[in-house]
Amino acid sequence: MTTIAELGEIGLIARITAGLPQSAGVIVGVGDDAAVLDIGCGELLVATCDAQVEDTHFRLRHTNPHDIGQRALAVNLSDIAAMGARPRFALISLLMPPTLDIAVLDGIYEGLREEAAQFDVALVGGNIARNAERLIIDITLLGTGTRNMLLRRDSAKPGDAVMVTGSLGSAAAGLLVLEDEQLAAKIPSEKLVGVLAALRTPTPRVAAGQWLAQHDVTTGVDVSDGLAADLSHICEASGVGAHIEAESLPIQPEVVTLATLAGREPQDLALFGGEDYELVFTVPADRADVLAHELFVATGVKATAIGTICEGSAMTLFRQGKPSPLRSNGWDHLRST
Amino acid sequence: MTTIAELGEIGLIARITAGLPQSAGVIVGVGDDAAVLDIGCGELLVATCDAQVEDTHFRLRHTNPHDIGQRALAVNLSDIAAMGARPRFALISLLMPPTLDIAVLDGIYEGLREEAAQFDVALVGGNIARNAERLIIDITLLGTGTRNMLLRRDSAKPGDAVMVTGSLGSAAAGLLVLEDEQLAAKIPSEKLVGVLAALRTPTPRVAAGQWLAQHDVTTGVDVSDGLAADLSHICEASGVGAHIEAESLPIQPEVVTLATLAGREPQDLALFGGEDYELVFTVPADRADVLAHELFVATGVKATAIGTICEGSAMTLFRQGKPSPLRSNGWDHLRST
Repeated sequence: MTTIAELGEIGLIARITAGLPQSAGVIVGVGDDAAVLDIGCGELLVATCDAQVEDTHFRLRHTNPHDIGQRALAVNLSDIAAMGARPRFALISLLMPPTLDIAVLDGIYEGLREEAAQFDVALVGGNIARNAERLIIDITLLGTGTRNMLLRRDSAKPGDAVMVTGSLGSAAAGLLVLEDEQLAAKIPSEKLVGVLAALRTPTPRVAAGQWLAQHDVTTGVDVSDGLAADLSHICEASGVGAHIEAESLPIQPEVVTLATLAGREPQDLALFGGEDYELVFTVPADRADVLAHELFVATGVKATAIGTICEGSAMTLFRQGKPSPLRSNGWDHLRST
Repeated sequence: MTTIAELGEIGLIARITAGLPQSAGVIVGVGDDAAVLDIGCGELLVATCDAQVEDTHFRLRHTNPHDIGQRALAVNLSDIAAMGARPRFALISLLMPPTLDIAVLDGIYEGLREEAAQFDVALVGGNIARNAERLIIDITLLGTGTRNMLLRRDSAKPGDAVMVTGSLGSAAAGLLVLEDEQLAAKIPSEKLVGVLAALRTPTPRVAAGQWLAQHDVTTGVDVSDGLAADLSHICEASGVGAHIEAESLPIQPEVVTLATLAGREPQDLALFGGEDYELVFTVPADRADVLAHELFVATGVKATAIGTICEGSAMTLFRQGKPSPLRSNGWDHLRST
């Protein structure tokens, strides 16, 4: 027998989605951040789902229930943001042990409702079922977007600038702190607030995603599995390669401090850490500076140029001018232990 | 501390959905078989989700993976059928142990794909995450329907006939067989085929639901928690009561045989068994016979009149003319053990 762990997440997805028939109304199917569906009106429907699993994505002992709820919706909002769509409706599927304290669920719903209110999402339905060992919050989020104004991943052109919103590696630094109590003791606790918040309650770039989709960027995805892995989706879909400048990666000072204390390369956290829920996008190079300025004025979100799209298919990392292959290995939920 | 088991499924749903704000575009929100959403076009969007959990809804040792996949989509199709909508797009969220044999997942997807093809549903996305102890298939199904042509649950009128498609109690009889090997040994195996199929691979009444929605029935829901429980949703939403004739309940002969052998009342399986995935609906009494005939001609699905909507709020069961209160207690996923 072959287990799904041996196959791995990417192999598994390829296997279960191979040869799916073309269907009327499906503009974008399996494989993007979200499906894009045409139900016969001006607006297209955008649909995504993502689950938060106890002991994989959160621990009840370490995390405020409010934050668990907020994050469960936020990671789905990030997928809608990655399409440049407007989030609208959520269905909440709860799988949980009957012994769960109702106070935990109250807290989770408080977080869910606050996040929903902030992003103008209606909670419209869901399901409840028993899962004896652990709590799972599985959310399907529906959004809408105008045809020809959704972010693609297949249209990056050689010469385009590669840009990223916000900063990278903070969530990975937050995870380092949670995994090593001695590390946390080495720096002032107020310097931990930012990285822990980045991990626990990421801010989905919903307004930035919609703004970018309306301002002719060539591609965009969200950074959920790590910059290298998510950028590789753009490169594969567009048939291009990319050069990334390590020194250009936007990294918060406390991330540098924590990584160094932990004996890790800060840029590795930025490239491979994942769970940043920023957006990485491409734009004709001559428009990069103006676009970043306008994006900031419109949404308050900074964007940083970190490299260039090139011919070929390889991704290359330049550290102090020295090139090395940039591997796209992101997090594999099935293989990892 | 209070656990969610103490609160129960209905109490929990009431608690987590209390005071949800009104939102633009939400025609029907939490509490119906599916949400009905307006994204600004002629067609309304109908959205539902339901999960199949290993050891709660199926056992890998006892069930063909193909059937597990087929059923996972079928129970969602039934919710779309209950709205009279046309099923369109499915998102498949898989939660599973890394040790799962890929052959099991192949079988599940074969069943999923066949069911999707049969009902013209596109598999458009999903998610994969680790759940160490058990496999869960959580599906969100999206459908569309024309405004004013969706099945409601709040418009039953005193005097309406109560009708049900197909027959009741077969899935519950199938469960009796699975739970008691000695029972299965008592009757010829060819007589078990129907009840086991009803349990494992229910047939969602998709065409019948759409047909009924277009032919002026006053209400309709699907029978997932048991006829009494599901009819009570119509009564509560419509502010009416109901009289049900026990002798009119459509029950297959082998269900009567199995129930009797198991020392159970066949009509109790029909009223409280659940998982039939038939439709119960109401229609002005003078149209009931003609409607049943036309429904059969159009879709091949039989419908049987089983009672009458009345004033008040009580549901009453008549056995050989003798009335007794009909309790609405259905299956509670959280309280049951």
